[in-house]
Amino acid sequence: MPFHYNRSNQPSKGRKPGREDINDAAQLLEGRNAVLEHLRAGGPTDKLFAAEGSEVRLGDILSLARKQGIPVTVCDRRRLDAMSLTGNHQGIIAQAAAHAYVSLEELFQVAAGRGEPPLFVVCDGIEDPQNLGAVIRSAETAGAHGVIIPKRRAAGLTAAVARASAGALEHIGVHKAVNLAAVMDTLKERGVWIFGAEADGTVSLYDADFAGPTAIVIGSEGAGMGRLIREKCDFIVSIPLRGRVNSLNASNAAAVLLFEAVRRRMR
Amino acid sequence: MPFHYNRSNQPSKGRKPGREDINDAAQLLEGRNAVLEHLRAGGPTDKLFAAEGSEVRLGDILSLARKQGIPVTVCDRRRLDAMSLTGNHQGIIAQAAAHAYVSLEELFQVAAGRGEPPLFVVCDGIEDPQNLGAVIRSAETAGAHGVIIPKRRAAGLTAAVARASAGALEHIGVHKAVNLAAVMDTLKERGVWIFGAEADGTVSLYDADFAGPTAIVIGSEGAGMGRLIREKCDFIVSIPLRGRVNSLNASNAAAVLLFEAVRRRMR
Repeated sequence: MPFHYNRSNQPSKGRKPGREDINDAAQLLEGRNAVLEHLRAGGPTDKLFAAEGSEVRLGDILSLARKQGIPVTVCDRRRLDAMSLTGNHQGIIAQAAAHAYVSLEELFQVAAGRGEPPLFVVCDGIEDPQNLGAVIRSAETAGAHGVIIPKRRAAGLTAAVARASAGALEHIGVHKAVNLAAVMDTLKERGVWIFGAEADGTVSLYDADFAGPTAIVIGSEGAGMGRLIREKCDFIVSIPLRGRVNSLNASNAAAVLLFEAVRRRMR
Repeated sequence: MPFHYNRSNQPSKGRKPGREDINDAAQLLEGRNAVLEHLRAGGPTDKLFAAEGSEVRLGDILSLARKQGIPVTVCDRRRLDAMSLTGNHQGIIAQAAAHAYVSLEELFQVAAGRGEPPLFVVCDGIEDPQNLGAVIRSAETAGAHGVIIPKRRAAGLTAAVARASAGALEHIGVHKAVNLAAVMDTLKERGVWIFGAEADGTVSLYDADFAGPTAIVIGSEGAGMGRLIREKCDFIVSIPLRGRVNSLNASNAAAVLLFEAVRRRMR
């Protein structure tokens, strides 16, 4: 599997126009031609920002985006002005991904290639790039076979995520799910047991059987797992908390669960 | 033990003049009188920045700082200008701590009060406030009795650390060691076994006996543990890594070790 790791040499400008989390200005493509060529070449793209009222003029770009399943945010032109580095965005800015995504099938193939039962991490809405990068790093070090993230309301594979992963993105595949719940159904059909992590679970961490085909679901920092995602889980696992703070940070919770899986699988 | 948690309402300006990591401008005290009164009142203080050539005029402040063991950085006046929010620093800026530190004895008392063998986390030079805050959060949720950090070359208890701890600083004590190696000697004299975490350790994580009095040492993100600190450890423990990236991020490593201690202690 060719994991290509684009290092960006340009410093991030750190501008954040809203929750969409534009952490890496160097990853922005601006203007009709730049965006159109990038999409035609099939370049990995997290999302598009289009100025209100430009929809007709940008029809070819928007229809390509629709075909490729890339989310489009239509917003006030002033917001694009604030994001723009060139000052010449022509009503369209694309946020390129720092890293290509892989298919779910490829993740299964990695597990099969190693002769191991699958071990996947599903991130339900982790928005902080530091946290997503750390989860990817922990997943790789624990020998997991892939990470699954949703297309919307979550950090994508930006350069900030790549940096926080400390190089792990070169060695582990990330699948971007258009519909996370549907992917969970597919995982179940293929014999994977799904373990959601939550404070008040029904199974204690040290009783969870992670030795078989396993997907571990980590919720977002604030809200935890979404209701539908939680319902799709086969088990809700709790890390036994012995203090007064009632949760770990998302990447730390993922690390604890993943290395309990390592312990189980070593026996 | 009175854990007092000062929430700052002022937004951080995010200025970072060098590695000293001034993340919380709201925590800065500027000018002779403000700094002198703060020190006389015994207010928690992480460090002082004094302008070169002002040493004589600031003699009373610098001698108080010396008595209280507060590190002083003597630097170019322009550096203070860049940090200053008031524009009137008079050659002296103090970085106040967001939280008071506690004595090593108090940490032992917490363990004794709960009737448990001590479980401490020693951070050897964690400079990133997010990481230190996450370690403190994990330590509290794992029921550890305290965290020990060095006075120099490490993040102190700034407001950024308090935020990243998600409130855990209200419930767990942090001791700031003038000399970390000497504190490790004290821990050993008092029967605590010291486990350093490193990639190529002599003991596998799942064979380490964390059930007795235990201190877990986590090294810095870049360099790991210092040589002297490493030599003071009774055991070097490795998390079994199954990927190609050769380390976890510092807070994730701490979480994995701490919850292995929880598992051991539940049996």
